[in-house]
Amino acid sequence: MEIVEFRPEREQYAYTFGGVAPVMKVRPGTVLRLWTDDAFGGALRSVTDLPSEKLTMPFVNPQTGPFYVEGAEPGDALALHLASLAPARSFGASSTIPFFGGLTSTDHTATLQDPLPERTWIYEVDTARGTVGFEAHSSDLRLELPMDPMLGTVGVAPGAGEARSSLVPDAFGGNMDTPEMRAGVTCYLPVNVTGALFSVGDGHYRQGEGEACGTAVEGAMDVTLIVDLIKGGAPGWPRIESDDYLTVVGSARPLEDAWRISQAGMVAWLRALYGLDKMDAYQLLSQVSESPLANVVDANYSATSKVPKALLPRRDAYDGMHRHLRGVAREKLAVA
Amino acid sequence: MEIVEFRPEREQYAYTFGGVAPVMKVRPGTVLRLWTDDAFGGALRSVTDLPSEKLTMPFVNPQTGPFYVEGAEPGDALALHLASLAPARSFGASSTIPFFGGLTSTDHTATLQDPLPERTWIYEVDTARGTVGFEAHSSDLRLELPMDPMLGTVGVAPGAGEARSSLVPDAFGGNMDTPEMRAGVTCYLPVNVTGALFSVGDGHYRQGEGEACGTAVEGAMDVTLIVDLIKGGAPGWPRIESDDYLTVVGSARPLEDAWRISQAGMVAWLRALYGLDKMDAYQLLSQVSESPLANVVDANYSATSKVPKALLPRRDAYDGMHRHLRGVAREKLAVA
Amino acid sequence: MEIVEFRPEREQYAYTFGGVAPVMKVRPGTVLRLWTDDAFGGALRSVTDLPSEKLTMPFVNPQTGPFYVEGAEPGDALALHLASLAPARSFGASSTIPFFGGLTSTDHTATLQDPLPERTWIYEVDTARGTVGFEAHSSDLRLELPMDPMLGTVGVAPGAGEARSSLVPDAFGGNMDTPEMRAGVTCYLPVNVTGALFSVGDGHYRQGEGEACGTAVEGAMDVTLIVDLIKGGAPGWPRIESDDYLTVVGSARPLEDAWRISQAGMVAWLRALYGLDKMDAYQLLSQVSESPLANVVDANYSATSKVPKALLPRRDAYDGMHRHLRGVAREKLAVA
Amino acid sequence: MEIVEFRPEREQYAYTFGGVAPVMKVRPGTVLRLWTDDAFGGALRSVTDLPSEKLTMPFVNPQTGPFYVEGAEPGDALALHLASLAPARSFGASSTIPFFGGLTSTDHTATLQDPLPERTWIYEVDTARGTVGFEAHSSDLRLELPMDPMLGTVGVAPGAGEARSSLVPDAFGGNMDTPEMRAGVTCYLPVNVTGALFSVGDGHYRQGEGEACGTAVEGAMDVTLIVDLIKGGAPGWPRIESDDYLTVVGSARPLEDAWRISQAGMVAWLRALYGLDKMDAYQLLSQVSESPLANVVDANYSATSKVPKALLPRRDAYDGMHRHLRGVAREKLAVA
Repeated sequence: MEIVEFRPEREQYAYTFGGVAPVMKVRPGTVLRLWTDDAFGGALRSVTDLPSEKLTMPFVNPQTGPFYVEGAEPGDALALHLASLAPARSFGASSTIPFFGGLTSTDHTATLQDPLPERTWIYEVDTARGTVGFEAHSSDLRLELPMDPMLGTVGVAPGAGEARSSLVPDAFGGNMDTPEMRAGVTCYLPVNVTGALFSVGDGHYRQGEGEACGTAVEGAMDVTLIVDLIKGGAPGWPRIESDDYLTVVGSARPLEDAWRISQAGMVAWLRALYGLDKMDAYQLLSQVSESPLANVVDANYSATSKVPKALLPRRDAYDGMHRHLRGVAREKLAVA
Repeated sequence: MEIVEFRPEREQYAYTFGGVAPVMKVRPGTVLRLWTDDAFGGALRSVTDLPSEKLTMPFVNPQTGPFYVEGAEPGDALALHLASLAPARSFGASSTIPFFGGLTSTDHTATLQDPLPERTWIYEVDTARGTVGFEAHSSDLRLELPMDPMLGTVGVAPGAGEARSSLVPDAFGGNMDTPEMRAGVTCYLPVNVTGALFSVGDGHYRQGEGEACGTAVEGAMDVTLIVDLIKGGAPGWPRIESDDYLTVVGSARPLEDAWRISQAGMVAWLRALYGLDKMDAYQLLSQVSESPLANVVDANYSATSKVPKALLPRRDAYDGMHRHLRGVAREKLAVA
Repeated sequence: MEIVEFRPEREQYAYTFGGVAPVMKVRPGTVLRLWTDDAFGGALRSVTDLPSEKLTMPFVNPQTGPFYVEGAEPGDALALHLASLAPARSFGASSTIPFFGGLTSTDHTATLQDPLPERTWIYEVDTARGTVGFEAHSSDLRLELPMDPMLGTVGVAPGAGEARSSLVPDAFGGNMDTPEMRAGVTCYLPVNVTGALFSVGDGHYRQGEGEACGTAVEGAMDVTLIVDLIKGGAPGWPRIESDDYLTVVGSARPLEDAWRISQAGMVAWLRALYGLDKMDAYQLLSQVSESPLANVVDANYSATSKVPKALLPRRDAYDGMHRHLRGVAREKLAVA
Repeated sequence: MEIVEFRPEREQYAYTFGGVAPVMKVRPGTVLRLWTDDAFGGALRSVTDLPSEKLTMPFVNPQTGPFYVEGAEPGDALALHLASLAPARSFGASSTIPFFGGLTSTDHTATLQDPLPERTWIYEVDTARGTVGFEAHSSDLRLELPMDPMLGTVGVAPGAGEARSSLVPDAFGGNMDTPEMRAGVTCYLPVNVTGALFSVGDGHYRQGEGEACGTAVEGAMDVTLIVDLIKGGAPGWPRIESDDYLTVVGSARPLEDAWRISQAGMVAWLRALYGLDKMDAYQLLSQVSESPLANVVDANYSATSKVPKALLPRRDAYDGMHRHLRGVAREKLAVA
């Protein structure tokens, strides 16, 4: 088992999916130990650091990568198993950015109103307790919130010569901002170009579903992941498998289309796993789906459709790829 | 404590919120033991019963009620505590209805395509095991799914002379179709007319989030609820409190607006409970919200914003109304 | 030919479609000479009259009616020919209402931002020149804009016991706010209840497409219309016929659904008139449709699909009803 | 005045905005005489040519360009004056493509329904009469429809390293598919990268507003345009000026956001031209806007907001750039 470490220099940060030369080639089966900067490129470090002063939009969500996966061809599925995610800074940051977020007008949901105030919150990490600390600006409320590290962006290059901002989620993955992307899961992405050219970034120490204000508890992350490949297995949209759930992520606007994509994607997955016809799969999904939102703030909104494995007979998706990678992670990387 | 039983005759079924004379007057504090027919009025009893033959649209979701609550005035909050929900039939039914549902075009998302096939599934109830049985039409798959009884519709009369179909969810509650509306919760609704005129119906033995095909495992329900009143406490949109969660339900199209409503409603609730300013409440919610969808199929879509009580300092919403009613239910009604 | 005059007293104003007793019965063929108050009930008469002080929401768009049409049964089409629309006051008023309008957040597109400023504009009517005068508040700009009188609301009672606010457009017509509803057109509405129970109101001396700020140049109106009935001809959604255009109005959210409804409705109309199959009708419409928006501010948004008669072979929709009523108006009512 | 002719070889076709090397450099003031292939790359030539057999998605809308404009820097406005558009083939083609279009489910508005039938229509061009001929497949209906040539795509490279499919409309222009883009107009686009890198394509001999079936009367086009540059004048979104109208095009989903963008863009333009404050501009626009839809089928939907110049005092947008280019076209290129 090959273990490769990589920490990008700042000039290596990638800000698009596609359109960027790979930082290295890796073989399927490789373990990558990566460092990812936070969405703000580390520019927000105190409550007086405001986005409009410290950030140069849209150069946020710097990506670590892209990685060229040997043997990956359009039509394949890239499997990325997140073996571990660990905060790489002692604090996380969140902020409100003018005309960005779910409870404000934006450049697309354009109104004539003034923007909301700009504000930054710093969350101290307490590694021992596994928490981040919320501190209100205008009152004394302080809370310790459990950490639940995740990656906001996991994506491959889109096809047909496109290059998309690292702020965008779409069929190629990208800025899906779903809390489901935590350690222990395997993410399946469609390969669109030779080599797949995947990258990761935008670590969140914690995020609410919907990511209302537009930013999570953003923090640099130490990421350990295993790369693998399923020849010919490209899903239409990103899939996530954990020990307990099958999940499909759809990204679109309006939000119902993101959900429709994820539901139709799950109908397809259930049909493939259980030999159901589309109406039976539709019916079954209607009664077992969990549908937590991912984000309602990005260039596309992301919705997830989750099916609890416990409700269904056991089937090995992708010939047991997730179980295999989970086993490798446990045995070789000593993750829980 | 007054306990009143009521089972409507078929000619007493109400099909709107508003515009219907009350079936009785009740005082705050009253326990109601009700029977509600299923969404189909019991018309689908075998897999050969098809909606287009057995139903007369839009006369579905028959309501038990409305009940006139003495002392209720516009601006008050009606509190309905669902002490228990128990299946009142040995089977539940679900079906696909032409041009109705989340993964089909509809009369509003109008396309020129043919409708999906019409099909009915019957779920046998196993009370001992607490399950309902799914049986595929086109294959041998059979599954026992855990029951999780809930009410699809809980609503009051809208104001300003409106009367709305029992298929509609809105600020008055109604057909929200959220799995959060299970036994043990207290639902807070704004009173819009003198007497509130609330009704309930549309029992689901189980429902996935989103209710993709448009119908849950629909079944008649024995409902025990406690009615109470909070003078002057009308929320903008329906709220649900359980032992573990505060929830706000928003209903609108497109789906992002349903979510925005629920999030803005939760910002307001958090501000009231914790004295936060709006930006701090917005930030906190962004990191702690759970946002499971309710339905993406009804006349308005419904989204929920949930905050886990365990993450926040204890506060008694509505002066502890939920805890009070939960206590009454435990002591006087012997619920768990 | 029967000519009936009616001017409602203030206590006769209706604020819903459905749920209101008719003010009178009329026979098909009757000419009605009506007076309709403006959307504000005449409460805004100077630039210092602000909506929050002068209006009691949602009691706006007072309706003149409803009228019970003898012989009208569900499934019929009500034909209302607008013979003439004439301003009944010397001024029109428009205003911005907090959290209402197209370029502001609203109670549904909920954000945490402050509302836009409230402001009222008064437009003096110059009957001789046929103009209304715009005067900027914050600068010297004054403009004479051509009058183009129209009715914002034309609707019938919805079915199934519903009653809807006069702010709502839907399949029953209502607050469609389309500039196409001007003198010289015939509006076809589906009859949903015995007697149809139609009403009109919300006169606009002029309105831009979309009605961005939420209010047009609102003014009381003298309305002359001819009532007629087409047995069994109920369209799915409101249709408008002029000498030059066939138009279908769809009302829904999101806006694409309003447009889809209007387009699918026009496909159906073209198929009926020209014997086209659905794909040929779809193709033809794709090349000849005009699609001006009506409103993007009401409870549902309204979009129109218009087909120029000049591009198509002559067909007499509804057996020439429009031409017939246009002829009556010209001969008996001396309209242009 | 420099006049440059360019007709791309097939291998020079560009399928993205951004990410493509320029075919040549041009100076502001240059006249370009271009040939653009149709959206299908000329692959549909008879009613038996079906998209699924003849096209390789998403390689449609081949672009002629990109052209590097000397001196163009981010923040400038590129002015493209369409001096003339003339059909370059004797026929146009339109077709229905599976799961693409406005009255079908799509890969984003995902349903489980079967696709609509695939069909191709060929429109013969009658240059003398200035018409294209519609022929129904399933009946005898034949119509001569007036030609109204336009370009579906006019765009520049997006910024920040993005490259977008020629199927996408956005702030950089692109596949806006608006009938307003006809001969005689000047289109103003924001320059995002040095050299602007603009391209054009997707000629339509005629298109209905909304482009319901997803394709217009598609045809190769001879395009004569004049390139010019306004230093520092970048509009937020594409603007179009004709002799009679100012127009802003917004592109987004849901459709109301496309409209909001175009309206907010017009508020900004009116403020700049007339010194209005935002509320006065909002009010004025509310009464004078025309809001025809462009397309409701592309990756983003496009809506336009148009203001008739005749209603407003004369102002010279961009120091009279349109009038200047119109004059050049008349004098030097002998257009009408």
